[in-house]
Amino acid sequence: MKALLLIAHGSRRQQSNEEVMLLADRLKQNCSEQYGIVHAGFLELADTLIPDGIKQCVDDGATEIIVLPYFLNSGTHVVNDIPSIVEQTRPHYPGIEIKVAKHLGASDLMMDLLISSANATS
Amino acid sequence: MKALLLIAHGSRRQQSNEEVMLLADRLKQNCSEQYGIVHAGFLELADTLIPDGIKQCVDDGATEIIVLPYFLNSGTHVVNDIPSIVEQTRPHYPGIEIKVAKHLGASDLMMDLLISSANATS
Repeated sequence: MKALLLIAHGSRRQQSNEEVMLLADRLKQNCSEQYGIVHAGFLELADTLIPDGIKQCVDDGATEIIVLPYFLNSGTHVVNDIPSIVEQTRPHYPGIEIKVAKHLGASDLMMDLLISSANATS
Repeated sequence: MKALLLIAHGSRRQQSNEEVMLLADRLKQNCSEQYGIVHAGFLELADTLIPDGIKQCVDDGATEIIVLPYFLNSGTHVVNDIPSIVEQTRPHYPGIEIKVAKHLGASDLMMDLLISSANATS
């Protein structure tokens, strides 16, 4: 079963972390055909860190996990930190395929999203 | 003439700021029919701050400016800082309409973008 693990930075502001959890819930409702399991995890400053999120996916029966960085810029978190944490976690789950998706800012749809957000205001 | 001002947080990592400037350039090429002027500005940690970006738009002939927060979460930057800076800048430009768009995370298209980014990897 395929799992989608949404990874946000994490914030001292609890409301911000809850917003990400809610987004993961909405995501689950919208992609259940492709991903039977959806969880959220955080790089830091939150209870559920990346290894915890991966464990939740595996416990739920995932055989393949797509780690999706909910980040706009390709800073050091995206380029180094997230791949490095996934790399360290991988050996704990032999037989489970764990892939890291490109960060959101790299999406072809970002241009449409920006223009649509601007237009909704003007 | 309508202007679009993309506002990112700003980073000590110069490459991250340049990525935002490049995104604004791409945006300019993609929305020139609706927005004759497109600039990028930063909340902090960069040369072009929000008031500088607004000034650039006005200098280029903007009569209406859409300030678009390139942020995923509705943290204090989105809820307080950006609107407050825009509010302080507004009196300097009477007759110019300056509106703040919702942050990207609030877009209806975010769900599609997330699923499409995940699918591109799996």
